[in-house]
Amino acid sequence: MIKITFPDGSVKEFEPGISSLEIAEQISPRLAGEVYAATVNNEVRDLTRPIYADASLVLHKWDDEPARHAFWHSSAHLMAEALESIYPGIKFGIGPAIENGFYYDVDPGDGRVITDADLPAIEKKMKELAAENLKFTRREVSKKEAMDIFTAKGDEYKTELIGELEDGSITLYTQGNFTDLCRGPHLPSTAPIRAIKLLNVAGAYWRGNEKNKMLTRIYGITYPKQKLLDDYLVFLEEARKRDHRRIGRELELFTFSPHVGMGLPLWMPKGAELRQNLIDFMTRILKKRGYQIVTTPHIGNVNLYKTSGHYEKYGKDSFQPMATPQEGEQFMLKPMNCPHHCEIYNAKPHSYKDLPFRMAEFGTVYRYEQSGELHGLTRVRSFTQDDAHHFCRHDQLKEEFKSIIDLVQFIFKAVNLNEYSAQISLRDPDNREKYIGSDENWEKAENAIIEAAGEKELETTVVPGEAAFYGPKLDFMVKDAIGRKWQLGTIQVDYNLPERFDLTYNGSDNQKHRPVMIHRAIFGSLERFIAVLIENTAGKFPLWLAPEKAVVLPISEKFNDYARKVFDFLNNSDICTLIDERSEKIGKKIRDNELKRIPYLLIIGNNEAVNETVSVRRQGEGDRGTMKPEEFADLVRKEIAGEITF
Amino acid sequence: MIKITFPDGSVKEFEPGISSLEIAEQISPRLAGEVYAATVNNEVRDLTRPIYADASLVLHKWDDEPARHAFWHSSAHLMAEALESIYPGIKFGIGPAIENGFYYDVDPGDGRVITDADLPAIEKKMKELAAENLKFTRREVSKKEAMDIFTAKGDEYKTELIGELEDGSITLYTQGNFTDLCRGPHLPSTAPIRAIKLLNVAGAYWRGNEKNKMLTRIYGITYPKQKLLDDYLVFLEEARKRDHRRIGRELELFTFSPHVGMGLPLWMPKGAELRQNLIDFMTRILKKRGYQIVTTPHIGNVNLYKTSGHYEKYGKDSFQPMATPQEGEQFMLKPMNCPHHCEIYNAKPHSYKDLPFRMAEFGTVYRYEQSGELHGLTRVRSFTQDDAHHFCRHDQLKEEFKSIIDLVQFIFKAVNLNEYSAQISLRDPDNREKYIGSDENWEKAENAIIEAAGEKELETTVVPGEAAFYGPKLDFMVKDAIGRKWQLGTIQVDYNLPERFDLTYNGSDNQKHRPVMIHRAIFGSLERFIAVLIENTAGKFPLWLAPEKAVVLPISEKFNDYARKVFDFLNNSDICTLIDERSEKIGKKIRDNELKRIPYLLIIGNNEAVNETVSVRRQGEGDRGTMKPEEFADLVRKEIAGEITF
Repeated sequence: MIKITFPDGSVKEFEPGISSLEIAEQISPRLAGEVYAATVNNEVRDLTRPIYADASLVLHKWDDEPARHAFWHSSAHLMAEALESIYPGIKFGIGPAIENGFYYDVDPGDGRVITDADLPAIEKKMKELAAENLKFTRREVSKKEAMDIFTAKGDEYKTELIGELEDGSITLYTQGNFTDLCRGPHLPSTAPIRAIKLLNVAGAYWRGNEKNKMLTRIYGITYPKQKLLDDYLVFLEEARKRDHRRIGRELELFTFSPHVGMGLPLWMPKGAELRQNLIDFMTRILKKRGYQIVTTPHIGNVNLYKTSGHYEKYGKDSFQPMATPQEGEQFMLKPMNCPHHCEIYNAKPHSYKDLPFRMAEFGTVYRYEQSGELHGLTRVRSFTQDDAHHFCRHDQLKEEFKSIIDLVQFIFKAVNLNEYSAQISLRDPDNREKYIGSDENWEKAENAIIEAAGEKELETTVVPGEAAFYGPKLDFMVKDAIGRKWQLGTIQVDYNLPERFDLTYNGSDNQKHRPVMIHRAIFGSLERFIAVLIENTAGKFPLWLAPEKAVVLPISEKFNDYARKVFDFLNNSDICTLIDERSEKIGKKIRDNELKRIPYLLIIGNNEAVNETVSVRRQGEGDRGTMKPEEFADLVRKEIAGEITF
Repeated sequence: MIKITFPDGSVKEFEPGISSLEIAEQISPRLAGEVYAATVNNEVRDLTRPIYADASLVLHKWDDEPARHAFWHSSAHLMAEALESIYPGIKFGIGPAIENGFYYDVDPGDGRVITDADLPAIEKKMKELAAENLKFTRREVSKKEAMDIFTAKGDEYKTELIGELEDGSITLYTQGNFTDLCRGPHLPSTAPIRAIKLLNVAGAYWRGNEKNKMLTRIYGITYPKQKLLDDYLVFLEEARKRDHRRIGRELELFTFSPHVGMGLPLWMPKGAELRQNLIDFMTRILKKRGYQIVTTPHIGNVNLYKTSGHYEKYGKDSFQPMATPQEGEQFMLKPMNCPHHCEIYNAKPHSYKDLPFRMAEFGTVYRYEQSGELHGLTRVRSFTQDDAHHFCRHDQLKEEFKSIIDLVQFIFKAVNLNEYSAQISLRDPDNREKYIGSDENWEKAENAIIEAAGEKELETTVVPGEAAFYGPKLDFMVKDAIGRKWQLGTIQVDYNLPERFDLTYNGSDNQKHRPVMIHRAIFGSLERFIAVLIENTAGKFPLWLAPEKAVVLPISEKFNDYARKVFDFLNNSDICTLIDERSEKIGKKIRDNELKRIPYLLIIGNNEAVNETVSVRRQGEGDRGTMKPEEFADLVRKEIAGEITF
């Protein structure tokens, strides 16, 4: 008999050669119907693989990532089988599971083209095949055998991949008439794939290289239950409506120009105002919390990045250095602000009494990304970090972490992101030589983070081995209004740059000491954060953030004069206000301006003009009564003060 | 007889061959003693050159630039003569008059070195020679003769220069034992050079090229009267005390780092705060005046600058293009914001009703300057423009100019720069083909500027021929507290970029029309403007601009707790405040903090701690009495509101 240890620590005995699926069945047939993959001795495997020795076992239900991965990976194979039956001779690239669903890159060949219009037929074929309950079977093969099979099939993409594999490590999976080169794991059979939706078709270069052939990428998603698929499609539609690229265009927040360059956002007036509202808000808090704000240039001499180590590590993949027309200097766009901040730190001597020195900058940095990777504001080539560096003594680490966690909590609350968790990344205890800094400092820093998170009652997971080589870190993950998770703030200890830039302070012993440096960003990048904000609010920003607070709507042109008076008064009171003087019906004006998500509509008809008042409507909430413009200005100020209390 | 026309229009007759000096003597011997050069038929000449035909004549006294130019140019020759007598065989580069005084670049040869310590001896020799009343004589020579003379002398720099001159255009000037290659004009003799001061010695590459030999540049200044020299030396000392580089260092406003790069200012916390105060102030005004603020990246594809024409014109002398690591793109640092703003304009359609579109940005731009040209914040490689572009209809030009002039006047007043003048630069009426845009538009635009300036009661000079090729402009010149003039704001009409970027709007006729573009900056660059501000105020900024408004000074450590409460209260009230908790005597604390130019000192002793008050001292003004911290916060707010009324 072999001993199987379950996650709760319980141990049961089974016959050698039993599979994970059979174990599940012995526990309960219902469980067997709900599991899709197993982790045996920390390796994710097919449920059907036999176990011959004592092992630990985790059975994965749908909510576990490995279950969904096996499910979607098997669905990719199912789609491939359907494609092969509809398009005989079609060639296959790669077909992985992704975060939501799967895709397969295919070369239809023979001048055939697959478009979105073809998806229903493929989907139908997949459903037929799934219903046949085709078993997935795994087979280990030699490199030669694999090569022979795919050469015979004429699948040049697969043979290219096989050519790069090591003999002895190659496995094939077969279901029905379809065999694929694959590491697995897969479902026992196609039967659980009950709800199927192919989403769209896109182009993708073979192996992501623009010099290679463009393949056809088909995206799909599947579920064990129709209800889950229906929910996902509702979610997709909701996400589509909230897509920040779409809302950004509708609200004229930002634009991109191919002449300026891809991935370089141009902030249009309303977007620039929104962005500035965020910066102003953040600046006010930073000042109250003892930060000192600096401003540094967007370029630095290449030698600066040689000193920092960034050039060696990222130089090849960055925007390349630019030369001066004379004097032979070489400059680079800054990919981060830390080297510049170290130079400001070094611009004057520091005493232990002056630390911590909390240095902040809204610093715009430039990082090259391939054009295919760019996506709206979430993946750009230029972005502004809400960056700060705490230069502190070792004994101040915990307090600094607490102060930063407190700030993060304060800010997430102010922007209505109330569901978040955090991950503490520590050293790999088995590979201590990978890390810079003394054991003692690492232990202190790791404990400081763990204690600080505990004292601030932060929900955290601790992951050893995920620390950067230069120090441990704490990352925040935020959940938005439709349940998506976004990685936002990060706090990182750094023992490396203080060495490289020879940062020092004078201790109470009158000796030179090395400060610790903490990197921290809360939004991460303003661009990405604004994308999250847009998608979270669907463009209905809280009043303090909204680029425009109100729009004045005269009922007819007769009242345009008084309307303009109100408009001028509010703008002069620093309340950003628009006016809609078009000769349209008031109903249309209201609808148009509600579409623009302007929080307050101020309607002006005869009564208002005579009494010098405005009739106030709140976006999505309706009438708020009639009042003097001064009262409305007060109402706006009070509402904002209520939204963000410092 | 020949007819000589004077600037007042009067005409007098003289014998042919009479010199300007003789004319001056005939008018009055006193006048002859006060003139240093003459403009004959629009050409500046030696006073001693004879006039043979009817001519217009302007006699230049000291206050005229041509007079000082001749005086200082002659002084450079005088210094050269002195140098040659002290350092026989010394070789000469160039020795021009400059804005204040003159210099000569020399190669002492023979391993000799000239330092500041040698200047008194040279000065002494100059005084001796000047007293000899040596006549300056002018001689036209052939290229061969000139070459022979300087070859014989072994002066390789002069022969290099002669080699590049055209035969028939070469003149030599001689006084005493010294002969120089020179176009003149010069004084009649050395006699008027009565007050002489050699200022300093610096290194300068021959012809400004780092590949050439480093010569010794000797700076000096001279005056016809000792009083003028004394005044200038007092002014120099005052300017030295106000030098923004010195005050910037003392107040820790900004720094430069050779690792980041020369000419790239790093704004330290206090400087960044000062800079932000300016930006915030400006932003508030801009919004009230209908500007829309945008934010654009600091780079653009090279093609953007090919479209704008900047690449062709400035590309060679700019920071060179940088490549992407893949995809073969080429980007440049932006040298100006206009192309980006044109792209934002083009991001949506515009109607005649929406114009003017006043688009503003505090845009940081990068322009390469040779390291030798860099100077503190006034000549940098990276600077932030308070840039705006008005896109308007032709019929709106005058109103737009008026609104900009009004804004400039408002802002200059707010920053206490009350003495300024403006120059209107028009087309050269004789070279109309040099300019882009129709005659009709040029006339309209020129008239619009002239009328707008008139209606805003601006003191202007109109200079034909100084317009840019793309449109007429208006520049502002400001006088600072010690009388120096600085070129600040500029307003330029542009017919070129709207063509190049194909900017359009829909007219009331429903046809596409081309808008006019106005470029305008008021500070020009924040960096340069802050330099002017520092030098104008000697670092004693008005309260609204000061980076820190107050510092809390506990009389002894006993009161540190209460002092910190006051400190926290004020910072929480958004009044940027410091605290000085050192265990120093209060007298020293006051002195130290007055040196830091902090506007308010809040002294805290026993009475204040017991009564929960602060004792208020205004920088440079003394006691303001004792009050509650809340009252002090109000006092600060009211003072700021009084300084800048919107």
